[in-house]
Amino acid sequence: MERQESSPELRQDLFTERAVWYIPGRIGRPSDWVPRAQPEEGEEPGRGCPFCPGHEEETPPEVWALRPEGDANTPGWQIRVVPNKYPIGEAHELIVETPQHGADLPDLPLEHLGDVVEAYRERLTALSEDERWEYVSLFKNHGRGAGATRIHPHSQMVGLPLVPPLIEEELRCARRFYDRERRCPYCHTLAEELARGERVVFRNGEMVVWSPYAARMSFECWILPLSHAADFRALAPSQAEALAEALQKALAAVRRVWPSPRPFAYNFYLHTAPTRPDPSVERAYHWHLEVLPRLGRLAGLEWGTGLYANPVPPEVAAEKLRAAL
Amino acid sequence: MERQESSPELRQDLFTERAVWYIPGRIGRPSDWVPRAQPEEGEEPGRGCPFCPGHEEETPPEVWALRPEGDANTPGWQIRVVPNKYPIGEAHELIVETPQHGADLPDLPLEHLGDVVEAYRERLTALSEDERWEYVSLFKNHGRGAGATRIHPHSQMVGLPLVPPLIEEELRCARRFYDRERRCPYCHTLAEELARGERVVFRNGEMVVWSPYAARMSFECWILPLSHAADFRALAPSQAEALAEALQKALAAVRRVWPSPRPFAYNFYLHTAPTRPDPSVERAYHWHLEVLPRLGRLAGLEWGTGLYANPVPPEVAAEKLRAAL
Repeated sequence: MERQESSPELRQDLFTERAVWYIPGRIGRPSDWVPRAQPEEGEEPGRGCPFCPGHEEETPPEVWALRPEGDANTPGWQIRVVPNKYPIGEAHELIVETPQHGADLPDLPLEHLGDVVEAYRERLTALSEDERWEYVSLFKNHGRGAGATRIHPHSQMVGLPLVPPLIEEELRCARRFYDRERRCPYCHTLAEELARGERVVFRNGEMVVWSPYAARMSFECWILPLSHAADFRALAPSQAEALAEALQKALAAVRRVWPSPRPFAYNFYLHTAPTRPDPSVERAYHWHLEVLPRLGRLAGLEWGTGLYANPVPPEVAAEKLRAAL
Repeated sequence: MERQESSPELRQDLFTERAVWYIPGRIGRPSDWVPRAQPEEGEEPGRGCPFCPGHEEETPPEVWALRPEGDANTPGWQIRVVPNKYPIGEAHELIVETPQHGADLPDLPLEHLGDVVEAYRERLTALSEDERWEYVSLFKNHGRGAGATRIHPHSQMVGLPLVPPLIEEELRCARRFYDRERRCPYCHTLAEELARGERVVFRNGEMVVWSPYAARMSFECWILPLSHAADFRALAPSQAEALAEALQKALAAVRRVWPSPRPFAYNFYLHTAPTRPDPSVERAYHWHLEVLPRLGRLAGLEWGTGLYANPVPPEVAAEKLRAAL
């Protein structure tokens, strides 16, 4: 039996607040049943990689590019944004972060990484202008252990017709704290953490890299702006540079502590305000980027209870990450 | 730097309702940083497997056994329950389900699987009597893709000093539905699903195997009792046999549809009432066992939003699972 192409369907049941997308497509063959199926063999640069220069016609036409030279959809770009050929939802873009097939973000020159951050901000702002989306999610999968299906560096952005469950949960907690303390819980915690120091990995004039008190994963770290800001769309140019530096330091440190020969793998994702302005969000929430190294796999404990088991306390993780800088 | 052995520490932060255990132990070597690290090479029966007969002295002394012959902590057992040498929390037991190193639950005779279910019920009841535990979690990891660290079939049971986040969420949703409809949402949905039929995989006189409307994973299925029951501890002997049959059918069907050559991997876990009696739980909640085939890996979308992307709608999954029976 094969389904026809159709719109993705979003479902929530009576039993929990989680939600599921059913991705349209063909599901006749067993290989179609595996989310994010991996290619059978490793890709080579320019051989089978639609994100390499010279293969621009293998993706849908670009919607944005940083392009010092050349015409649209030809080589000469530094960063290229294209619609995903296999979208989850109706607005799903891929931000191809560099023409270099085998690079990883911390290998890029800092100025280039600043341009990547600026591309994130511009596309997030553009997608947020579409009335259909309540939230725009930005995330990255690096390495097969993190669910990546392609080697060539890229992040993803999806417009969502609902505020997703994890953001709703953070907003609920933030509003509750604000109502009690008249303060953003992230600003409050950041002040305490900076004074204490033991979980701080890196800081510059605008950003902090920090192993959170209840980190779920070994070497998990979060990047937050020092000044209160709920909405990533308001990022200033000086903050984009500072965020690029913080991201470079965080990813490079995690890569240095990574136990070989396990292949390096991480996800990151942005948590920011929903698209529609809301004063209770503006005052209580604080955007942040969470970096999740993927050393282990979730098992029955996590799936069954929502409790995580983590062998590396964040104080130890931060110490090792600082030493790796 | 090496930490000393100490009690596990449970942490929750201000930002979400999730919780994290920091597992005590040594964290000096990089291999200690990987949750559920796998042995470097596959285990052989009787070689390095502490769960095989003849190796009883390699585990802490048994706390329960189904033992047709022999003395405690010697061969002759059919099912053996031992404290975990590497506990998460203070009460963490392993239920070794068979002396056969390479068997999987659906390979066991139905009567033996009924005894396994009865062992689950007995140990869950015994751990629940300890005043320290608000909840007792039962779960199984089968295959490396599901986070299993040992091949020899076993499930795990952990006494928890809190009602875990996912159970709190289900209880909140169930109470909300009950307050509106004066009915358990699981009973309500089960009646509709049985009438409709398309998501039902199997049923006998006591149990239903069913692909839920908002299944997160390809071929996810849940097992529920037909009669309303919040608490697994009240399972009757006839229900234990029926549950064994339902579990055997569900796991055998998932294994048959599994796309080769990917190694078979699944988790299951029980969701049941917290240890302390509560009339609002008794009337609104319904225990169930969730089987999660682990075909894919979570990626940035799921980690970042709590939304799942599933390529196989449950109607299609149920059809393929029914055909595999």
